Amino acid sequence: MQIKVMKKIMGSNQEVADANRQRFAERNVTVINVMASPGAGKTSVILRLIESIGGEIPMAVIEGDIASSIDAEKIEAVGIPVVQINTGGCCHLDANMIREGAKDLDFRNGLLFVENVGNLVCPSSFDLGERLRLVIASVPEGHDKPYKYLSMFEGADVIVLNKTDLAEHVDFDRALFDKGVAAINTRQAPIFPVSCRTGQGLKELSEYLSCIHHTR
Amino acid sequence: MQIKVMKKIMGSNQEVADANRQRFAERNVTVINVMASPGAGKTSVILRLIESIGGEIPMAVIEGDIASSIDAEKIEAVGIPVVQINTGGCCHLDANMIREGAKDLDFRNGLLFVENVGNLVCPSSFDLGERLRLVIASVPEGHDKPYKYLSMFEGADVIVLNKTDLAEHVDFDRALFDKGVAAINTRQAPIFPVSCRTGQGLKELSEYLSCIHHTR
Repeated sequence: MQIKVMKKIMGSNQEVADANRQRFAERNVTVINVMASPGAGKTSVILRLIESIGGEIPMAVIEGDIASSIDAEKIEAVGIPVVQINTGGCCHLDANMIREGAKDLDFRNGLLFVENVGNLVCPSSFDLGERLRLVIASVPEGHDKPYKYLSMFEGADVIVLNKTDLAEHVDFDRALFDKGVAAINTRQAPIFPVSCRTGQGLKELSEYLSCIHHTR
Repeated sequence: MQIKVMKKIMGSNQEVADANRQRFAERNVTVINVMASPGAGKTSVILRLIESIGGEIPMAVIEGDIASSIDAEKIEAVGIPVVQINTGGCCHLDANMIREGAKDLDFRNGLLFVENVGNLVCPSSFDLGERLRLVIASVPEGHDKPYKYLSMFEGADVIVLNKTDLAEHVDFDRALFDKGVAAINTRQAPIFPVSCRTGQGLKELSEYLSCIHHTR
């Protein structure tokens, strides 16, 4: 595992993001920008997808955290190439960080998961050059998140509703959640209810992402 | 209820925060800056504290959200003065927003809860003029949060661990959580385990905050 400590650079994030997207397309790499609140289950979902898709499509991970390499160690433990980016305080990943991180991976023909910093606000403003924005909400966070964190849910291509196994222990109104997404999302994002604890719904999600990877 | 849509202004946040702190002290207002991830239970904790402290000490709330007035409506429903600040995309409250919000409240001799934007990163960088920083973590978010969101846990005066009723349904190692807090926190913050669902631990937390208010 490599750990990179990044500093924000000035210059156009969008230009670097567009260049990233072109480079990833040339290499047949489908980049999935995974965004969520702290503790919504970003790493758990990625690990479940690795388990489910493994063998079929090569995978790699760029882990973004303000500090620590806790998550990257979990990815490395299952034998998947991973680069840890520590932002040193910065509340989001940017396109330059992804460019540098991807250089170290030298990855082709597969799925590259980028786990963003746990934050339901700021990461949505930074295009990384991804193909898909996958936003994870979790049941114990409550059904009102799409009404409060507009920009994140507006730009999501895929929405994962994690921790469905906790639904019976909390007040979560699925219809209100879906209504909030429908009111704000501009990309007709499908919603996949999953539980990383029980495995429920992960097969459907992994099939969807495989399908996306195979269709350009 | 008043709803204010705020824009960030340039100028020194610290100067405004210091002036806020002096003004609040003159009016015997104890300001508690409540910070947490989205869905950790900021509003639920405030509502439980209102229930527990109510009658003993006057209370008021400033609600910070990017959008919506969902939380402020819940506060208003229990008869507590509340000002809703909508940041219009901004990922944190700043001292100027609090100065303007507090003008509308015209509050004295009590506890003023400021519910920050749901974000475990950016709000920690902005002094609002508060007396206490109360950081809420929730059990389903996992025990690794203090290791990843250093600045938030470093500067906390009080840490609330919410949703303890879910502990039996998730993997949460309380000793690891406490160890992470002890390693980073500079203010000897006490940790209060609570459940807003069952009411567990709220009495101890409300007694602690009452005690802080009565000792200057």
